[in-house]
Amino acid sequence: MDNMSMIAVASILCAGVTTSFGCLGPALAEGRAVATALTALAQQPDASATITRTLFVGLAMIESTAIYCFVVSMILIFANPFWNYVISQTPGK
Amino acid sequence: MDNMSMIAVASILCAGVTTSFGCLGPALAEGRAVATALTALAQQPDASATITRTLFVGLAMIESTAIYCFVVSMILIFANPFWNYVISQTPGK
Amino acid sequence: MDNMSMIAVASILCAGVTTSFGCLGPALAEGRAVATALTALAQQPDASATITRTLFVGLAMIESTAIYCFVVSMILIFANPFWNYVISQTPGK
Amino acid sequence: MDNMSMIAVASILCAGVTTSFGCLGPALAEGRAVATALTALAQQPDASATITRTLFVGLAMIESTAIYCFVVSMILIFANPFWNYVISQTPGK
Amino acid sequence: MDNMSMIAVASILCAGVTTSFGCLGPALAEGRAVATALTALAQQPDASATITRTLFVGLAMIESTAIYCFVVSMILIFANPFWNYVISQTPGK
Amino acid sequence: MDNMSMIAVASILCAGVTTSFGCLGPALAEGRAVATALTALAQQPDASATITRTLFVGLAMIESTAIYCFVVSMILIFANPFWNYVISQTPGK
Amino acid sequence: MDNMSMIAVASILCAGVTTSFGCLGPALAEGRAVATALTALAQQPDASATITRTLFVGLAMIESTAIYCFVVSMILIFANPFWNYVISQTPGK
Amino acid sequence: MDNMSMIAVASILCAGVTTSFGCLGPALAEGRAVATALTALAQQPDASATITRTLFVGLAMIESTAIYCFVVSMILIFANPFWNYVISQTPGK
Amino acid sequence: MDNMSMIAVASILCAGVTTSFGCLGPALAEGRAVATALTALAQQPDASATITRTLFVGLAMIESTAIYCFVVSMILIFANPFWNYVISQTPGK
Amino acid sequence: MDNMSMIAVASILCAGVTTSFGCLGPALAEGRAVATALTALAQQPDASATITRTLFVGLAMIESTAIYCFVVSMILIFANPFWNYVISQTPGK
Amino acid sequence: MDNMSMIAVASILCAGVTTSFGCLGPALAEGRAVATALTALAQQPDASATITRTLFVGLAMIESTAIYCFVVSMILIFANPFWNYVISQTPGK
Amino acid sequence: MDNMSMIAVASILCAGVTTSFGCLGPALAEGRAVATALTALAQQPDASATITRTLFVGLAMIESTAIYCFVVSMILIFANPFWNYVISQTPGK
Amino acid sequence: MDNMSMIAVASILCAGVTTSFGCLGPALAEGRAVATALTALAQQPDASATITRTLFVGLAMIESTAIYCFVVSMILIFANPFWNYVISQTPGK
Amino acid sequence: MDNMSMIAVASILCAGVTTSFGCLGPALAEGRAVATALTALAQQPDASATITRTLFVGLAMIESTAIYCFVVSMILIFANPFWNYVISQTPGK
Repeated sequence: MDNMSMIAVASILCAGVTTSFGCLGPALAEGRAVATALTALAQQPDASATITRTLFVGLAMIESTAIYCFVVSMILIFANPFWNYVISQTPGK
Repeated sequence: MDNMSMIAVASILCAGVTTSFGCLGPALAEGRAVATALTALAQQPDASATITRTLFVGLAMIESTAIYCFVVSMILIFANPFWNYVISQTPGK
Repeated sequence: MDNMSMIAVASILCAGVTTSFGCLGPALAEGRAVATALTALAQQPDASATITRTLFVGLAMIESTAIYCFVVSMILIFANPFWNYVISQTPGK
Repeated sequence: MDNMSMIAVASILCAGVTTSFGCLGPALAEGRAVATALTALAQQPDASATITRTLFVGLAMIESTAIYCFVVSMILIFANPFWNYVISQTPGK
Repeated sequence: MDNMSMIAVASILCAGVTTSFGCLGPALAEGRAVATALTALAQQPDASATITRTLFVGLAMIESTAIYCFVVSMILIFANPFWNYVISQTPGK
Repeated sequence: MDNMSMIAVASILCAGVTTSFGCLGPALAEGRAVATALTALAQQPDASATITRTLFVGLAMIESTAIYCFVVSMILIFANPFWNYVISQTPGK
Repeated sequence: MDNMSMIAVASILCAGVTTSFGCLGPALAEGRAVATALTALAQQPDASATITRTLFVGLAMIESTAIYCFVVSMILIFANPFWNYVISQTPGK
Repeated sequence: MDNMSMIAVASILCAGVTTSFGCLGPALAEGRAVATALTALAQQPDASATITRTLFVGLAMIESTAIYCFVVSMILIFANPFWNYVISQTPGK
Repeated sequence: MDNMSMIAVASILCAGVTTSFGCLGPALAEGRAVATALTALAQQPDASATITRTLFVGLAMIESTAIYCFVVSMILIFANPFWNYVISQTPGK
Repeated sequence: MDNMSMIAVASILCAGVTTSFGCLGPALAEGRAVATALTALAQQPDASATITRTLFVGLAMIESTAIYCFVVSMILIFANPFWNYVISQTPGK
Repeated sequence: MDNMSMIAVASILCAGVTTSFGCLGPALAEGRAVATALTALAQQPDASATITRTLFVGLAMIESTAIYCFVVSMILIFANPFWNYVISQTPGK
Repeated sequence: MDNMSMIAVASILCAGVTTSFGCLGPALAEGRAVATALTALAQQPDASATITRTLFVGLAMIESTAIYCFVVSMILIFANPFWNYVISQTPGK
Repeated sequence: MDNMSMIAVASILCAGVTTSFGCLGPALAEGRAVATALTALAQQPDASATITRTLFVGLAMIESTAIYCFVVSMILIFANPFWNYVISQTPGK
Repeated sequence: MDNMSMIAVASILCAGVTTSFGCLGPALAEGRAVATALTALAQQPDASATITRTLFVGLAMIESTAIYCFVVSMILIFANPFWNYVISQTPGK
């Protein structure tokens, strides 16, 4: 296996693992936040405006960590500086 | 094993692992959100409109992380830039 | 082991792992949702219509992540682009 | 070890792991659902019709993920396209 | 180690692991179901008919996943298509 | 290491692991069932007949999964078809 | 390492692991059962006859799974059919 | 594999793992903080100003640890001193 | 490494692991049983005779599983049939 | 792989793992501290000054452990004494 | 590495692991027992004689499993039959 | 890889792991201590002096274990006796 | 690597692991015991004499298991019979 | 890698792991003890003298296990008998 394919394999594996593993935490955290929001709504229907607003700010904050992972994953697949360097060095393979 | 098959094997393994592992978190989170929604409905049937709406927004948010994983998995199988590059370099094998 | 069998082995292993692991989360999540639905029904029998409807929407949502995994698994067994490419390159072996 | 036995070994291992691991989640989930159904019945014997009906729908839903795994396992043992291809290529060994 | 023994070893290992691992989930789930049934009986002795009936349906459902694993295990030991094919190819060894 | 000893080693390891691992679940499940039975008896001594009967049915059901594992283990030690085949092929070693 | 010592090593390792791992579950389960029995006795001293009887039946049932493991372990050390076969084949070494 | 690709592979793997693993903790922690904020709001709607302010300070603090990981990951991809040194040493490869 | 030392090493490792791992379960179980006995005594000092008696029977039962492991460990060190056989085959080395 | 790249690879891997793993604990701990602060505020709005002050001292203390990890990570990337020594020994590579 | 050092290494590793791992369970169990004893004393100071006596019997019982591990560890270091045999076979090395 | 780089690699890896892993425990422990302090303050605002003092003593005590790890890590990077010895032995490399 | 250094490495590794791992259990157990003692003191300040005495006996008992590990660790570093034997066999190296 | 560096590497790795892992337990235990002390103070401010005294004795006891690990770690870095022996055997390298 030469350099080029080594880097390709590492990028592929890493992109998948980053996305899947990086979504575990945000998904669970969002599930927890939504679940508590529902409990809170059932307990105090009058405060639904404040609760909904706080929930959405929180979900956006949590989703941001999932976005970080997705961004790193996309960079590794479509804008990988190491791959670009190696390609530029290979003369028609 | 030459470069081409190495990349193919990595893509196959990664596609499967990304989807299956990436669905673990969202599934559990959705289960939790739905479960609390049901508890909330039983506690406060009058607030069912607010609860259902919040639940659906939350489920959509959580499902989005599962979608990220599915998208990465599909990219790795059907639109893999590394595989395309290697194929384009191989003259009829 | 040549390229062809390597890809076959990876596809087989990955199909099985994707399905079995990908069903773990949805199964547990559905179990949780159903369990809470039953508790909710016992607590508030009058709201059974809303509870049942919310439960079914939630189960469909959770089942969808299991379906993603099953679809990826079927693609890897019966419509694997890497396998098809390798087969098309092998002249009667 | 040649290609043929490699694929056979992978199929055997994968069939077993898929079934055994894939049954873990559904079994635990069904146990949870049945357990809550029993608690609910003890709490609210009058709602036994609704509870039993919801329980059976839920169990069917959960069982479906176990069925996916069993189906993949049976496909790998008795209708494996990779094995069939390799067999068709081997002239009486 | 030739092909034949490789397949035999894989079948032996897989049969054992499938049965033992596949029994973990059902056993725990049945323990949970039985435990809740007993609690329910102590709480509501009058509903013992409904509770017992629901318990038995649930146990049968859970046991079915253990049966799947046992069946796959028996197929791998006594009706293994890969082993049969290899045996049929070996001329008295 | 030749074929024969390979199969023997796999059978030995598998027999032990199957029994020991396969007893983990049933033991814990029975412990749970017995524990709840005792709690139920202390709570509702009058229902001891129903409780004891349900406990014994449940224990038998759980024990059955331990029996499956023990049976597979005994088959692998004393009635192993792969070992028998290999022995029949070896002319006095 | 020749066949004989391979089988001996596998038997030794397996005997130890089977006993030690197989005792984990029963020990924890018995601890749970005894603990609940003590709580039940403190709660309902009058039912001590029924509680003690049920406890002993349960302990016997749980101990049986530990016995299975111990039996398999003893078979592997003192009545191992694979070892006996290999010894019978070795002419004084 | 020469030095250059070794460093590239290590950087790729490390960037992905750092981001995905480093987001697990912050995501869960933010989920917890948001969840408690919602419970607190439902309990004491009058203190919503103090609660919201404390929540945002806390989220910023927690997000900072996710930012550390993202920064390290970006440094490893786009400003890696080891990679730069190796590139500067390689004369046109 | 020849046969003899291989068996010696396996016996040493296994003796240690069996004892240490096999003591984990019983120790935790006894701790639980003793802890509950103390709670029970504090709750119902009058039933101390029954509680103490049941505790001792339970501790003996749990200790028995630790004894199994210790016995297997001692057999492996001081009465190992495989070691004895190998020693008897080695003519003064 | 020569010495220089070995040290580079170790530094890269270690920097990433140190930051990501070292942020897990502080993130979870801060999440817990913030969550309890919010609960405390909802319970005792009058003590918000003391609570906020104690919270900030605590967060600073916890953040300090995350800072230790980030510092070690930065030292390994930008001020690594081992790398500097090796570079100083290499005459223009 | 010859036989002698192999056995020495195995004995050293095993002695350490046996003691450290074997102390985990008893330490936790004793901590639990002592903790409950203290709770019980605070609840029922009059029963301190019975509680203290039961606690000491329990601690002795639990300590015994730690002693087993320590004994096996000491046997492996200072009275190892396998080491003694190998030493007696080595003529001054 | 010669001795020098081996020691360098081990020091780098160990410094990172020691700091990151060693901060896990203290961070979680401080989070717990701070959380309880906040609960205590909300419950008993009058005792805030005693609570704050005890909290700071406790945090200092816990932080000390994190300091131990940081110190060991710094010793391994900047005052490593093994590295110094090897450097002193290498004549200008 | 010759025998001597092999034994040295095993002793070093084992001494560290034994102490660090062997301190995990006692530390947690003592933490639990101290925590309950404090709760008990707050609940029943009058029984502080009995509580303190029982706590100290319990701590001594738990500390003893940590001492076992420390002793084994010291024996392995400073009074290792295997190392002494090997040293005595090596004539000035 | 010769003997000397092997021992150096083992000492470095072991020193780091011993300190970091050995601090996990004490840190968590101290966190628990401090947390309970704070709860106790909030519950019973009058007993603060006894609580503080018992807390400090307990913290000292728990810290002692962390000290053991730190001592072993320092011995391995600065007073390692195996390293000293090897250095004394190497004539200026």
